[in-house]
Amino acid sequence: MQPIDFRSDTVTRPTPAMRRAIADAEVGDDVYGEDPTVSRLEARIAERLGLEAALFVPSGTQANQLAIGTHCRPGDEVLTESGSHILHYEGGAVPALWGVQPAPLPGARGLLTPDVVAAAVREENIHNPRTRLLSLENTHNRGGGTVWPLERFRAVVEAARAAGLAVHLDGARLFNAQVATGVPASSWAKLTDTTAVCFSKGLGAPVGSALVGRADLIREARRLRKRLGGAMRQAGVLAAAALYALEHHVDRLAEDHANAKRLATGLAELPGVKVDVAHVETNILVAQFPRPATETVALLARHGVLVNTAGGPHALRLVTHLDVSAEDIEEALRRIRRAVA
Amino acid sequence: MQPIDFRSDTVTRPTPAMRRAIADAEVGDDVYGEDPTVSRLEARIAERLGLEAALFVPSGTQANQLAIGTHCRPGDEVLTESGSHILHYEGGAVPALWGVQPAPLPGARGLLTPDVVAAAVREENIHNPRTRLLSLENTHNRGGGTVWPLERFRAVVEAARAAGLAVHLDGARLFNAQVATGVPASSWAKLTDTTAVCFSKGLGAPVGSALVGRADLIREARRLRKRLGGAMRQAGVLAAAALYALEHHVDRLAEDHANAKRLATGLAELPGVKVDVAHVETNILVAQFPRPATETVALLARHGVLVNTAGGPHALRLVTHLDVSAEDIEEALRRIRRAVA
Amino acid sequence: MQPIDFRSDTVTRPTPAMRRAIADAEVGDDVYGEDPTVSRLEARIAERLGLEAALFVPSGTQANQLAIGTHCRPGDEVLTESGSHILHYEGGAVPALWGVQPAPLPGARGLLTPDVVAAAVREENIHNPRTRLLSLENTHNRGGGTVWPLERFRAVVEAARAAGLAVHLDGARLFNAQVATGVPASSWAKLTDTTAVCFSKGLGAPVGSALVGRADLIREARRLRKRLGGAMRQAGVLAAAALYALEHHVDRLAEDHANAKRLATGLAELPGVKVDVAHVETNILVAQFPRPATETVALLARHGVLVNTAGGPHALRLVTHLDVSAEDIEEALRRIRRAVA
Amino acid sequence: MQPIDFRSDTVTRPTPAMRRAIADAEVGDDVYGEDPTVSRLEARIAERLGLEAALFVPSGTQANQLAIGTHCRPGDEVLTESGSHILHYEGGAVPALWGVQPAPLPGARGLLTPDVVAAAVREENIHNPRTRLLSLENTHNRGGGTVWPLERFRAVVEAARAAGLAVHLDGARLFNAQVATGVPASSWAKLTDTTAVCFSKGLGAPVGSALVGRADLIREARRLRKRLGGAMRQAGVLAAAALYALEHHVDRLAEDHANAKRLATGLAELPGVKVDVAHVETNILVAQFPRPATETVALLARHGVLVNTAGGPHALRLVTHLDVSAEDIEEALRRIRRAVA
Repeated sequence: MQPIDFRSDTVTRPTPAMRRAIADAEVGDDVYGEDPTVSRLEARIAERLGLEAALFVPSGTQANQLAIGTHCRPGDEVLTESGSHILHYEGGAVPALWGVQPAPLPGARGLLTPDVVAAAVREENIHNPRTRLLSLENTHNRGGGTVWPLERFRAVVEAARAAGLAVHLDGARLFNAQVATGVPASSWAKLTDTTAVCFSKGLGAPVGSALVGRADLIREARRLRKRLGGAMRQAGVLAAAALYALEHHVDRLAEDHANAKRLATGLAELPGVKVDVAHVETNILVAQFPRPATETVALLARHGVLVNTAGGPHALRLVTHLDVSAEDIEEALRRIRRAVA
Repeated sequence: MQPIDFRSDTVTRPTPAMRRAIADAEVGDDVYGEDPTVSRLEARIAERLGLEAALFVPSGTQANQLAIGTHCRPGDEVLTESGSHILHYEGGAVPALWGVQPAPLPGARGLLTPDVVAAAVREENIHNPRTRLLSLENTHNRGGGTVWPLERFRAVVEAARAAGLAVHLDGARLFNAQVATGVPASSWAKLTDTTAVCFSKGLGAPVGSALVGRADLIREARRLRKRLGGAMRQAGVLAAAALYALEHHVDRLAEDHANAKRLATGLAELPGVKVDVAHVETNILVAQFPRPATETVALLARHGVLVNTAGGPHALRLVTHLDVSAEDIEEALRRIRRAVA
Repeated sequence: MQPIDFRSDTVTRPTPAMRRAIADAEVGDDVYGEDPTVSRLEARIAERLGLEAALFVPSGTQANQLAIGTHCRPGDEVLTESGSHILHYEGGAVPALWGVQPAPLPGARGLLTPDVVAAAVREENIHNPRTRLLSLENTHNRGGGTVWPLERFRAVVEAARAAGLAVHLDGARLFNAQVATGVPASSWAKLTDTTAVCFSKGLGAPVGSALVGRADLIREARRLRKRLGGAMRQAGVLAAAALYALEHHVDRLAEDHANAKRLATGLAELPGVKVDVAHVETNILVAQFPRPATETVALLARHGVLVNTAGGPHALRLVTHLDVSAEDIEEALRRIRRAVA
Repeated sequence: MQPIDFRSDTVTRPTPAMRRAIADAEVGDDVYGEDPTVSRLEARIAERLGLEAALFVPSGTQANQLAIGTHCRPGDEVLTESGSHILHYEGGAVPALWGVQPAPLPGARGLLTPDVVAAAVREENIHNPRTRLLSLENTHNRGGGTVWPLERFRAVVEAARAAGLAVHLDGARLFNAQVATGVPASSWAKLTDTTAVCFSKGLGAPVGSALVGRADLIREARRLRKRLGGAMRQAGVLAAAALYALEHHVDRLAEDHANAKRLATGLAELPGVKVDVAHVETNILVAQFPRPATETVALLARHGVLVNTAGGPHALRLVTHLDVSAEDIEEALRRIRRAVA
């Protein structure tokens, strides 16, 4: 029995057409700035987000961390929602790489309010860390794939600007937000100093993210990328897949969203399982199962359904993606029903 | 009009007898380990806290930071109550000096529960910071001078131990806890790996704190102290005052506590001022005044009463100490009454 | 006129056969440890070097830095030859990422002596950085592609061991050393705790290096790789090329060495150009041209020959590789003769 | 037998008059900027060095480190002579606290040339650390108490300025340079951005140094001082001694210099002992004894003469100071003669 894998949208494998794009990629040494495919990708994504420049990097973690390293000095503080990826899934990089203190702010499904942001900004004083940066996440992973309504996003960014903060957006799944709402990704990105996007999550490329933003910041990020060991040589083989994904895999995210909704609806019918179906906005859903989360993970795995825990004692995260079809959803629901029967 | 200074118990000036102790101090070069007064102080405070060894340092901030640097490696996480001193008043040192991520936990008046601690410990996983240390604070400054009940302290420490964490105690005001409860300071300290105590807060010495703990940890802290520039030469001139304070200024903290209670009771009678008199356990009280905190600070200063803000929009902190007498309390209440009239 | 590119062996492009290997790669999510091609590459390179485990990373810089981060704590010191790559080409990562102080030691063409290493080890003392690691480089890039004679290498490693140091080898071009001498790469590697090798230099893969070493160290490096943003998803598309390179591009390094020798001999005949032909051991040569180095770089570029400066005021570095044939060498010599005529 | 202590000028004990100054010090809480004696000292030393502002700190190490932290960001490089104090005696703080790479430059008795400085400045390039700061030392401790001739100092500073570097002076013994040459300390200091001076070396105060420099830099250093735990409360008890030292102990350094010269002359007459008498410029001399340095240290200690090793296998450092009289020199020579007989 082939498992159906809802652990993450990072597990997708390149399609045959994407593999051809990889094999045919025109390449050069990108450390010398000479890989034409990387350069094309960087130009394309910058334009797409309405920002000046972009930098191709091996992972979403590196894209976010380069932003933090570019904006901050040691002893600075970054405001971020308490469930954000940079706090929980990047190996303590915020303090370890940059000496920066994360200030976790309370949010609702990952979204902040302008008041919470404004109240968290510290006054200038030798005792205090310097509040320097606001880092937002759209869609918000732990929040359950939440989309930031544009006006709320704007208001929060304005609160940060009023306090002199820089603004970074972890947009690993920003195109999911675009497809879910019809609002172009650039509408959020243009309000930020830097935005990170990922090609190897919902978009299905094998490897790579980009940090996009003001040209001077991207120039500094390029320097820091070398330091982190993220400068790659003939990276065009990866960038070709990312370009292919940008062209062919954005609109199809709608299928993932529909699949997630269908999956949520099905799960909600199971006894003892709680899912807030109305809040399944994109390709992520969080469900509460009766047993402890790690037990349920193991149970479902034995029945051919792979999922991840999601922070709470009973919470599981399920993510739909390119390699899960509408039929797989039905089959998965059958397997889960059997498992929890 | 001589202002009455409630900003902090750090503002005390050495008494004539303490000045004589300073002037007569036997000294040597403590970087070579040859200052007899420093060595005597270190032995005395270690014995007093029931721990193996101690290190004299210029400040409470340095004592806490040496503990964190001794226990942790970059990318580790320290659990601590969300209002703790290491989070708010040490200049972002936790990440900036050691690359360590602080995880602020919700507390009640600064106190945690075993469950909150246990739930915050992360599993071993490449995505996660490593939860390494629990840092507690007794009395808890921002909590309002809260004393940790010994049994609750023990339960929280046990939760940390069960998860393999080291335990540090920021005991800048640990002797206030002793005097308020009759429980010896060592009862808390002995449960920890390291405890920081301060001689220049309620104890009234001009300069200095100690980090006290296991001998191997203190040896490493001595090394890190050099790196931070905290190794001083003829530091006996400072240690003599600390020794004097340990001998003469501990029991008298009871007066400060009585004064704080009297002050709280008086403030509670003022219209629009809120003080939780029952919770004034030691020498710190937090009061809510009707106007914004910074306005009230300025207003009271004009009337000869100095106070500090305390984290909330209307919250003020008032601290009693060696240089504030019972008469000063009455006079201060008169002045505050006039100010807010 | 197609330029002949001697700037570095990093500029090579994948061959058609390598591109097929890339396109056909079996892949999975390597962050979950599920990419079979990456796993195969890691097992293969570990076995090849006679070490326990390996980790695939995006660059040689990251492989070296993970070694330093794994072996050292902040305030430690790493001994390394004064021209080593970690000192000059990794963006200050040794101190910036790990807080580690590099101690540059004087070498001869990049090689150290046991005495120099032993003398550089500091005594245990609170004033001193802790000497923790010796980092060697084979072949030595700035030294001119120098191969470490195995017995000398062993003696230097023994001096480090006697002082309790860990030993890392930057073997970005270790297979060049193997091919030049007939000594297996494992002979050097087995003496170390960690060895970094690169697939995208002489071996001609587009992207990737490996850190190879003791299993416990590689486990920790895997954690640190996440923190640096070097954990990639379907990295098998890169690992497939590296596997192909390991199988097909090692022995052919002999051609690069012969080409370098031929190039050196030709350059030595030019008026005013100095090359130590006898010391051209592998695929790198350093030549002194009469004019300032940056001028000569520009001059040769105009004549269709790309080279890099090499640290000294008149020094140029020329590197042979997969994309430079024996005929290219003759043509390059003709162009250079015209340029400097 | 009372040992005669040449280990360092840090071992001096406060005189009775200095102790009176300490006991009578007017104090306040310097963390609030309210210690009048500290403020007076800071104003006095700034004026004395012809610079804008000053900051009192617990040690020379902290003064130097605050300068580096103020001037640099992680990944920057500081140029400094290969024997400088910041490289060897500050616990690896340059990389550990600030992520800064030290570049040790070859000097002659601690002094650099403009050419060496200019050649060490790296070009702007993503591979390179950023060369940001030149840190000089006057007098140069390991060089043997060497005074920087003012014109040479100026030329080296100009080379740094031409490359856009900031300039810091470790002037722990700057007043020795003033007294040895008649050139005011300010002549060197005014050419720098920041200068550190120490009150507890030759000047004989028990504890304390100052970082002096541009007002904006000192403001930032004040912030970093809090982070390092160097902000002290009633530090006036220490500053009073420093003020006394500035007034009464500067000119008398001439005696220490004469004593060092006399000591050097006497040592040079001993068989097998080598001292470059002509180069004893201030209060430090380096002598080569026939036996291994650590053996000689132990031998002399048994004969009542305390000295330190000095970096080389046979090198000892002897330092004269306030607590060593001209008669002590004669007695020490008698003891040393007996010891090595």
